[in-house]
Amino acid sequence: MSLVVVGSMAFDAIETPFGKSDKIIGGAATYIAWSASNFATPIKQLSVVGGDFPKEELQMLEARGVVTDGVEIKENEKSFFWSGRYHLDMNTRDTLDTQLNVLANFNPVVPDSYQDCEFLMLGNLVPAVQNAVIDQMKQKPKLVVLDTMNFWMETAMADLEKVLSKVDVLMVNDSEARQLSAQYSLVKAAKVIMNMGPKYLIIKKGEHGALLFHNDEVFFAPALPLEDVFDPTGAGDTFAGGFIGHIAKTKDISFENMKTAIIVGSAMASFCVEKFGTTRLKEISKADIDARIQQFVQLVNFDIELV
Amino acid sequence: MSLVVVGSMAFDAIETPFGKSDKIIGGAATYIAWSASNFATPIKQLSVVGGDFPKEELQMLEARGVVTDGVEIKENEKSFFWSGRYHLDMNTRDTLDTQLNVLANFNPVVPDSYQDCEFLMLGNLVPAVQNAVIDQMKQKPKLVVLDTMNFWMETAMADLEKVLSKVDVLMVNDSEARQLSAQYSLVKAAKVIMNMGPKYLIIKKGEHGALLFHNDEVFFAPALPLEDVFDPTGAGDTFAGGFIGHIAKTKDISFENMKTAIIVGSAMASFCVEKFGTTRLKEISKADIDARIQQFVQLVNFDIELV
Repeated sequence: MSLVVVGSMAFDAIETPFGKSDKIIGGAATYIAWSASNFATPIKQLSVVGGDFPKEELQMLEARGVVTDGVEIKENEKSFFWSGRYHLDMNTRDTLDTQLNVLANFNPVVPDSYQDCEFLMLGNLVPAVQNAVIDQMKQKPKLVVLDTMNFWMETAMADLEKVLSKVDVLMVNDSEARQLSAQYSLVKAAKVIMNMGPKYLIIKKGEHGALLFHNDEVFFAPALPLEDVFDPTGAGDTFAGGFIGHIAKTKDISFENMKTAIIVGSAMASFCVEKFGTTRLKEISKADIDARIQQFVQLVNFDIELV
Repeated sequence: MSLVVVGSMAFDAIETPFGKSDKIIGGAATYIAWSASNFATPIKQLSVVGGDFPKEELQMLEARGVVTDGVEIKENEKSFFWSGRYHLDMNTRDTLDTQLNVLANFNPVVPDSYQDCEFLMLGNLVPAVQNAVIDQMKQKPKLVVLDTMNFWMETAMADLEKVLSKVDVLMVNDSEARQLSAQYSLVKAAKVIMNMGPKYLIIKKGEHGALLFHNDEVFFAPALPLEDVFDPTGAGDTFAGGFIGHIAKTKDISFENMKTAIIVGSAMASFCVEKFGTTRLKEISKADIDARIQQFVQLVNFDIELV
């Protein structure tokens, strides 16, 4: 049984108030795989890249237990490219350039060897592609997690609604939750969205942490207060990787365990933003991760006695 | 030994997207006293009102254990009046009218019977007045807590700096912390502010919870996700009341106990916003409060085992 990760593997060029990157490795599935592979392997990666995507990047992931049989390489085409500039608040950004390239005609084919999929992580991608992957799965995975973004709500809402009806967990940020539900209150937004399909909803609030909703239950996860957020690119994907990695490791899809998985995801995201791109994710050790998770435990730990 | 609360007792007129109030009872010290008196009495109130302030409001507080010897009544003058309109996000507001009235020449005189002050809660008020109260205390209280706002940073910064150098705990919201420190990162802001005097800093983030800083330690308290925020007026004061009320009840000024006090303050603030003005604070029972605090425990509770 395995964890299947679907999403882009790509190039990014990033400008932040702190500096500017060259064309560096990015893509939702890249971040998810780097993050999740700290917790569970094998990870079966489903993506598409052009001939310009460095083979060493795939080899580094393989060395960590990421299977790349499902990563299609279109040698004569170019990889997806995104360029953006973050504002001073590091929460909002302008897209400077988007070149779909290989993503323009991505028709994912799920390899037979991926049919043992127990956990399916659908990284942010065209909803029709996410839907095609779900439909190719001969057995329903134990848990299907979906990440998406406002762009698809504006351009492919019908497809997105179709996918939403088939997933167990949805991850969006707070403004996307408001947009998707047409509700300002996040509690009301959660109710509307959970009626669209997902039984669990994770609302990511950046420096303000994350909320997990399920039926009438709610869990509030903190974000680690950081001195500097150097580059937020990929933080949401890294969060998703830590979340699904912990679930795949423990094979426990209870609400209680999802709470823990969110803490793990938040800890991973807190590393991601410390350097440009995937740099920090490639450096950290298990000891670093354990220490960071302990910081989260301390961050919210309090004793109360009602007398 | 006692808890002394300093601040305005006043009238407010409030407009929110949900409705409009008449001229209702407000003022920082009013909210603080209603909130804190659930946990510790006597509370010794230091304030000034005009002849128009209803005597029954003072009597209701007295019935809860609030001593009003230090509430000066200027029979021929009018109480402080504030009127404001909240935006849809319920986080930002426009001031429509401010009439200082009795607050214009408020020279507080600390009664001798207040000199046993163990805990001093300085509600949001002119910094020079807050300073005058500190200077009249013959013995340094065990803990001095200060609430303030952006208005004083813009109009009375020299006085505010003087007060800051004399207090133990400062409470401000996130934008005020950024303004006071000229730092965007709240972690950096906290360091700058703790160098101005306060050993403890509480940054209130509304629906995003609150942070407590002390030396290199940090605690992240959640806010209860609410379906509706009906009226945020007084939520910060109510938070302050719950915080200082718990500290005064337990007589424990450790960082660990301050964490608990912030949870108590957050629980109290979550009631305040449910109805206009002090309405909800006048209704709730100990059982309501205990149940709400339990919700906070559930909200952030998670198990993690590092293997």
